Amino acid sequence: MVIHLKKGIDDGLISELVRELSAVRVRFNGTQILVTPSAIKNVSATVEPYVDEVFICNTDIQLASTEYRPERRQVAVGDVVFGSQNQTVMMAGPCSVESEDQINAVAEYLVNTGVRIMRAGCFKPRTSPYSFQGLRYEGLDLLAKVRDRFGLYIITEVKDATHVDAVIEVADIVQVGAKAMYDHGILTACSNSQKPVLLKRSFGSTLQEFVQAAEFILSGGNEQVILCERGIRTFEHKTRFTLDLCGVAYLKQYTNLPIVVDPSHAIGFAYGVPDLARAAVAMGVDGLLIEAHPNPRLALSDASQQLDFQQFSALSRSLSPIAKAVGRQMI
Amino acid sequence: MVIHLKKGIDDGLISELVRELSAVRVRFNGTQILVTPSAIKNVSATVEPYVDEVFICNTDIQLASTEYRPERRQVAVGDVVFGSQNQTVMMAGPCSVESEDQINAVAEYLVNTGVRIMRAGCFKPRTSPYSFQGLRYEGLDLLAKVRDRFGLYIITEVKDATHVDAVIEVADIVQVGAKAMYDHGILTACSNSQKPVLLKRSFGSTLQEFVQAAEFILSGGNEQVILCERGIRTFEHKTRFTLDLCGVAYLKQYTNLPIVVDPSHAIGFAYGVPDLARAAVAMGVDGLLIEAHPNPRLALSDASQQLDFQQFSALSRSLSPIAKAVGRQMI
Amino acid sequence: MVIHLKKGIDDGLISELVRELSAVRVRFNGTQILVTPSAIKNVSATVEPYVDEVFICNTDIQLASTEYRPERRQVAVGDVVFGSQNQTVMMAGPCSVESEDQINAVAEYLVNTGVRIMRAGCFKPRTSPYSFQGLRYEGLDLLAKVRDRFGLYIITEVKDATHVDAVIEVADIVQVGAKAMYDHGILTACSNSQKPVLLKRSFGSTLQEFVQAAEFILSGGNEQVILCERGIRTFEHKTRFTLDLCGVAYLKQYTNLPIVVDPSHAIGFAYGVPDLARAAVAMGVDGLLIEAHPNPRLALSDASQQLDFQQFSALSRSLSPIAKAVGRQMI
Amino acid sequence: MVIHLKKGIDDGLISELVRELSAVRVRFNGTQILVTPSAIKNVSATVEPYVDEVFICNTDIQLASTEYRPERRQVAVGDVVFGSQNQTVMMAGPCSVESEDQINAVAEYLVNTGVRIMRAGCFKPRTSPYSFQGLRYEGLDLLAKVRDRFGLYIITEVKDATHVDAVIEVADIVQVGAKAMYDHGILTACSNSQKPVLLKRSFGSTLQEFVQAAEFILSGGNEQVILCERGIRTFEHKTRFTLDLCGVAYLKQYTNLPIVVDPSHAIGFAYGVPDLARAAVAMGVDGLLIEAHPNPRLALSDASQQLDFQQFSALSRSLSPIAKAVGRQMI
Repeated sequence: MVIHLKKGIDDGLISELVRELSAVRVRFNGTQILVTPSAIKNVSATVEPYVDEVFICNTDIQLASTEYRPERRQVAVGDVVFGSQNQTVMMAGPCSVESEDQINAVAEYLVNTGVRIMRAGCFKPRTSPYSFQGLRYEGLDLLAKVRDRFGLYIITEVKDATHVDAVIEVADIVQVGAKAMYDHGILTACSNSQKPVLLKRSFGSTLQEFVQAAEFILSGGNEQVILCERGIRTFEHKTRFTLDLCGVAYLKQYTNLPIVVDPSHAIGFAYGVPDLARAAVAMGVDGLLIEAHPNPRLALSDASQQLDFQQFSALSRSLSPIAKAVGRQMI
Repeated sequence: MVIHLKKGIDDGLISELVRELSAVRVRFNGTQILVTPSAIKNVSATVEPYVDEVFICNTDIQLASTEYRPERRQVAVGDVVFGSQNQTVMMAGPCSVESEDQINAVAEYLVNTGVRIMRAGCFKPRTSPYSFQGLRYEGLDLLAKVRDRFGLYIITEVKDATHVDAVIEVADIVQVGAKAMYDHGILTACSNSQKPVLLKRSFGSTLQEFVQAAEFILSGGNEQVILCERGIRTFEHKTRFTLDLCGVAYLKQYTNLPIVVDPSHAIGFAYGVPDLARAAVAMGVDGLLIEAHPNPRLALSDASQQLDFQQFSALSRSLSPIAKAVGRQMI
Repeated sequence: MVIHLKKGIDDGLISELVRELSAVRVRFNGTQILVTPSAIKNVSATVEPYVDEVFICNTDIQLASTEYRPERRQVAVGDVVFGSQNQTVMMAGPCSVESEDQINAVAEYLVNTGVRIMRAGCFKPRTSPYSFQGLRYEGLDLLAKVRDRFGLYIITEVKDATHVDAVIEVADIVQVGAKAMYDHGILTACSNSQKPVLLKRSFGSTLQEFVQAAEFILSGGNEQVILCERGIRTFEHKTRFTLDLCGVAYLKQYTNLPIVVDPSHAIGFAYGVPDLARAAVAMGVDGLLIEAHPNPRLALSDASQQLDFQQFSALSRSLSPIAKAVGRQMI
Repeated sequence: MVIHLKKGIDDGLISELVRELSAVRVRFNGTQILVTPSAIKNVSATVEPYVDEVFICNTDIQLASTEYRPERRQVAVGDVVFGSQNQTVMMAGPCSVESEDQINAVAEYLVNTGVRIMRAGCFKPRTSPYSFQGLRYEGLDLLAKVRDRFGLYIITEVKDATHVDAVIEVADIVQVGAKAMYDHGILTACSNSQKPVLLKRSFGSTLQEFVQAAEFILSGGNEQVILCERGIRTFEHKTRFTLDLCGVAYLKQYTNLPIVVDPSHAIGFAYGVPDLARAAVAMGVDGLLIEAHPNPRLALSDASQQLDFQQFSALSRSLSPIAKAVGRQMI
């Protein structure tokens, strides 16, 4: 149950209500909100005098649910907005920051192609200790320089809680990677900030758990959360993961958060990325996250799935008419 | 290895070659073909004199592979063609034939909407013995009447080998359902016919197994095979299945068979069917299979996932501009 | 709802009740039974006079449920009983009947080792048309001879409905393979017989669907059904399938059918079969199905997972003390 | 490739070799070790003079592989040893520390039952922000007191990198939970310590990724790693997860780390825990992790799966004869 309190209730009283209702206290734009466990479905007589409005939620998806707020939230990154009715945002760039030359080449290309947000990883959540682990803080510095030089917004990934503050400081969008979706150290740091957060679905997590992870950030007071579907793990291994577009349809129907699709990590092979990107745009998603690299064969990570610039440009051109066909514009 | 034999080799000699190579003998349009296990990668000196052309395949996906035949096969159902470069075929109708009135209402609606192929099941592969099992042969008779009266082509499902001949006789396209994908009684009967076959992927089968099931039909001499992705079973249960569009991208890349998508069975809920249908069309698939019913709430099976006529018409209108955006036309 | 009718109600009246209740009519040992859809939870006043006893079931698992019948059913194959409190039955043999010599060698070995039931397949549900498909009817003849000569009981697999009658005639236990679990042609033929049926769980099916497939056989009037867990398909591919022993615990708790485990097909590699067989015996299952072959490396199918005789004998010796530790005896 | 260097090579030279081979440097008991990416399969002439011994590994499972070290490693927790040939260690206790009374009651019971290691969580990785999150540091203090008072060893879970140092300080075994398996902040902290670490398999991770996570700890210099299988996520939802005992067989065959099974989290229901625990012991695992609570119905987390003391005692009695049947002893 999400409870909007009346204005002007003092802090001591709110603390009492929190205790009585086992609630979490949230403040959005000056509104005092209590969120109780969803099992609680009605307000007692002692609490009622302080209540302005009440929203009953079926499950512990509450602040993110359409039961609480039917219209989609908007997350603004400078002048780029996720969650508007008629725009789909392209984010692109290499898997990893590899060198200043590489990242400059990408940035220049993106600016020329009209892409506003660049992705690139510094802290790589690799599965083997014996492969490239990312440029780490040095990579963050390069991203900060590239942003200033090219006027791009930056989305980059946080891998664990030890460097979350550094990423929050540098990034325009903090990407919480699939393997970190359950990391409460990260979720807590993000919830205490006002930076936009792109939360990737863990490949082993249900839609319910995915949105509940977003709920940790929201309930800490940060409303700037974007959901990203990037493929789940199934028995099918011809492709790296299985992009769950049924899940995207579900998220559109039952949550109020902007939704982004990452086809690159889903299929894991460049050949299928354009078709899947087109599918996502036809569904009316709020953004795409695509891996592109000046020379994918030489990439230090995820070589098989990154598009080269020629492939990316062709994809980009094909998306505009599809976006238009569903009443949207690619930006 | 697929071996095209030279013309004019006599039957006795071919039989010897079959034995020597542990091969399956296939005849397509007068060409004599031997298909050996894919582990065999070269032709011996004794066999070579009879060989016209050889195609090496990596796996036991052979006749269906782009290694054998790079261009997409075309399957014609009267004047409707699956697998052309620029058409996407709509097939629609109720889950089950329930009565003559119901099926006539659907047929009339489809004709008015421009749909050429009607789907409707007679033999229902239900999971419980205590629910509606379909009208069976009576349903087949109704479908035959509807076809004659309305000029629609009919696709209907075969559930097991005991009624496969009856379905082959009546249907314009024989649908081999997901639960029957491994049924060799059905696959063999289909391979001995020249009727178009729409083979649905079992929700528990890999892409490799799926195409190998098609290979059973092809290697029996029937080239009229259409693949249909309809969702696989994953850990995610908010939706009934998970539509595997990564798999569709794979099938487009590595096989030569026309590809159809069934979003209705994939998600299992009407709310998501239009978005998923739009996604499939944006990927350039060869057809859609959509459940539509005059009054879904009263449907005897799959009530939750069938579109009503108003929803179907709205979907239909939205598909044309997307098809056009990817160089296709809905028919 | 399972309804036991009073004795002496005439057939015409029963047919009326069947219609009124949308019920399936079953006869077990002279008791007239009606099974309604599980959604029906009570008996109307018009029906009540004819009712002897009523069992409410939560789901369409009814005749197989402990709600209907709490004690485990017993399935007798000659003097070997599945489902007793204190015996675990070993079934062993090669994946396929390959030749008379091979099958005689196995039979002789099994008799010497004290195994009473031999498994061997004739109709192989292969995934590729270009590999060994089994000796088919010739294999059935060899099994019939081996049974007579060595006094073993035979379990062999039916692949599709075209040969189900032949298998029912020859086998002592009809094995419905994992890929045929949904085959209503087979299920119907089995339900019309009184032969014991070992129903394997499809690797893509839920426990609910698995037991509902058994319900098709039971509701046709054949109570001789044994469930077999043989591994489900998951994202883990280091092993061929994932043996679902949580599922076995569930089946023991909620169903009344004897339960057998097949570790060979689950893991797909001989190295793990003994450990998994020991695990199953420690859980108190009613039987094991193990692949053993005189020379696994030369096997025409499933070469990697079959035990040689030395390995099988070592396994066999290790099982007795475990069975004893859980109050059972291996037979 | 794992390279044991000759004794007495100076640090500067080792650093050069590390760079040349893109290797990770590890020190185990005074032996200098370089681990290269597994793709490197041989040693160049310039490196050879410094090499004592070389182990080629097929994949990036290297230090944990039987290719490197065929015998099972032993991890000692005081006088309790995981990985011996003939002992299986019981660890038991409640899901969460809830109060001093509760944890004292459990400790007293465990001591009386002969259990040496108590489990109990302080930092709970809950999926909802609106449910009990654990007593956190207060819980750690209670565990420290209980250990001193009752002489039990303590295993407790670390949830994220923000409190990993506190857990390492208090725990006798640091449990890295399933949702934290990929957390490099935690893995790094554990690798820099010499505390025994029980690493739980993420329910969405493959066996390869699981052991590679262990490889992060090993390659940092901490050899005290225990693997714990606790169920993976599959399409089957009648049970909470699917215990992967095929995976346990694989880990026994291909890795050198002690293996523990947690049946409580796997099935999620108390009814199946004893059978699954018996199965694991019959497979010869090195330990069990079982949830037990004085009054499961009142538990603040995981109420459905915790055994009460009576159930636990019955289970405990049943395990000894099975352990004996496979040449082991429960401790």
